[in-house]
Amino acid sequence: MDFGEVLSILKNDLNKVEASIKENFQSDVMLIPTIGNYLSNGGKRIRPILILISSRLCGYNNGDKHITYSCVAEFIHTATLLHDDVLDEAEIRRGSPAANMRWGNEASVLMGDFLLSRSLTMMAEVKDTRAIFYFSEASRKMVEGEVLEMINPFNLNIQEEKYIDIIKRKTAALMSASCRIGAILGKRLSTEEDTLSNFGAKVGIAFQLVDDLFDYIAEEGKIGKEIGKDITKGKITLPLIHLYNNASQKDRKLIGEIVKPGDIQEEDFHQIIDLMKRYRSIDYTMDKARVYIKEAKEVMSGFDDSLYLNAILSVADYIVERDT
Amino acid sequence: MDFGEVLSILKNDLNKVEASIKENFQSDVMLIPTIGNYLSNGGKRIRPILILISSRLCGYNNGDKHITYSCVAEFIHTATLLHDDVLDEAEIRRGSPAANMRWGNEASVLMGDFLLSRSLTMMAEVKDTRAIFYFSEASRKMVEGEVLEMINPFNLNIQEEKYIDIIKRKTAALMSASCRIGAILGKRLSTEEDTLSNFGAKVGIAFQLVDDLFDYIAEEGKIGKEIGKDITKGKITLPLIHLYNNASQKDRKLIGEIVKPGDIQEEDFHQIIDLMKRYRSIDYTMDKARVYIKEAKEVMSGFDDSLYLNAILSVADYIVERDT
Repeated sequence: MDFGEVLSILKNDLNKVEASIKENFQSDVMLIPTIGNYLSNGGKRIRPILILISSRLCGYNNGDKHITYSCVAEFIHTATLLHDDVLDEAEIRRGSPAANMRWGNEASVLMGDFLLSRSLTMMAEVKDTRAIFYFSEASRKMVEGEVLEMINPFNLNIQEEKYIDIIKRKTAALMSASCRIGAILGKRLSTEEDTLSNFGAKVGIAFQLVDDLFDYIAEEGKIGKEIGKDITKGKITLPLIHLYNNASQKDRKLIGEIVKPGDIQEEDFHQIIDLMKRYRSIDYTMDKARVYIKEAKEVMSGFDDSLYLNAILSVADYIVERDT
Repeated sequence: MDFGEVLSILKNDLNKVEASIKENFQSDVMLIPTIGNYLSNGGKRIRPILILISSRLCGYNNGDKHITYSCVAEFIHTATLLHDDVLDEAEIRRGSPAANMRWGNEASVLMGDFLLSRSLTMMAEVKDTRAIFYFSEASRKMVEGEVLEMINPFNLNIQEEKYIDIIKRKTAALMSASCRIGAILGKRLSTEEDTLSNFGAKVGIAFQLVDDLFDYIAEEGKIGKEIGKDITKGKITLPLIHLYNNASQKDRKLIGEIVKPGDIQEEDFHQIIDLMKRYRSIDYTMDKARVYIKEAKEVMSGFDDSLYLNAILSVADYIVERDT
């Protein structure tokens, strides 16, 4: 099954998720739905997709709670993007000017807060405090990951394990919670919940590894945001960590001179990419992502073969095969 | 009963709230408890006080859920302050440099998000989705109030009802939810829940009226933040609305020249205050606050006389009598 087929199996549910997203940012304060509408275009909806498939896989089919939780996960994710974009002074997001550029920082921070409070109300209405617990713990971990990233700018000495710890919190925690929700909705055993949570965590790490790689090698028009942003902001990700750890004394010195606060020249950025190719840092990062995806799929071996098992494994493959 | 006696009745509970606050911003990401400790000093703890008294008044005495919710309300409130201070570029808060000045905007936004996610986990652990619903609705209204305030900067034509609508959402919603929580904990009838919610809303409006007045007339050292901030940021509050609506043609023109984007001169600020005194705008605002407090107390007339009824009425009085 390829990713296109996954989307087609989920088509009906995904349409309901889009409708739920639109419905839930309504407010009599008109600026809120205006920004909401603007934001709701262009996302890949990976977290909703994980929730929809995992809940079907776990046999949930007597209601629309999976739609509500999909909207919740997308709102939590979007709130994080909004706050990040303010802090990063991002100019482009999902292929359009970032909300902070269009409505200002104040509106972006408040819109993020609005989405968080709405997602909470939606969860309260479903009345499952276990789901609330896991989503709130994921939110906490996301913040911790962001803080850890923030306090280590331009730190080329950061080690791979530390970086993995950061992306586990920052990205994998919400994907892990999203997959667990499916098992909670399907009323599965706690061991199966843990299995899906573990699958989501590994997929999430791979997702961020590929995302971080895209910041060096993607075509700008394709990924919907600027490239070269991480290095400018001092965000040290795996390709650069691998490069710095494996480079010769001379090349390390050069890297140190390029990776520091201040604007980076385009030729310097290309020099870093050339070095990454020479030292195979790009291959290393991609291989690492593939290993996480392989492990994620192995974790699911206890589930019987089914349409939705194939679908969730196909999502895992897509994470490392995508080019946007 | 005076406010000092209220604090002494609640001493044991308030100590537990302080302990819960400290405990709940723990994280292995050390910057988080560092900022948390810094923030935890100097607050008036009005929302916890409302929760503690209303829960005792409603007969809750078999657990520590009122402590947890007090901490939740304080976290939601503090998160709002953190995000506001970033957006307002505040320099002083609770008598010390604002967190954004000390650790930067990024840390302040993230710390706010951390407090929101922690408060959510704490509520999930109490397992009462009705309480979660009311707190999340309050959070949503707070954001809406902030957005409404943001989109009307320097708008001297804003009407009193619009201003009251803004502060109802921005400030009164959380105080209203805090009072309702007491009735929820005490398992009171929904009519009594509504009564307490109504009491909290009126107290909250009065609280913000007085706060907005302080921005003109308080002694700087006392209230723990700068004065004159609202007019500089274009935040049009009741004293100014009343003044502008009642001033002569000539004075209105003068006010319009002073109240606009850009730095305001100290002598211009004092001229505004003199005009407010002349047109009795300060008295008008204070009288308005007193009316809300009177109404709040009347709302509670159905409750039997008791230590905790006296205490909650005394808090209402304190709102308009305080000088900090």
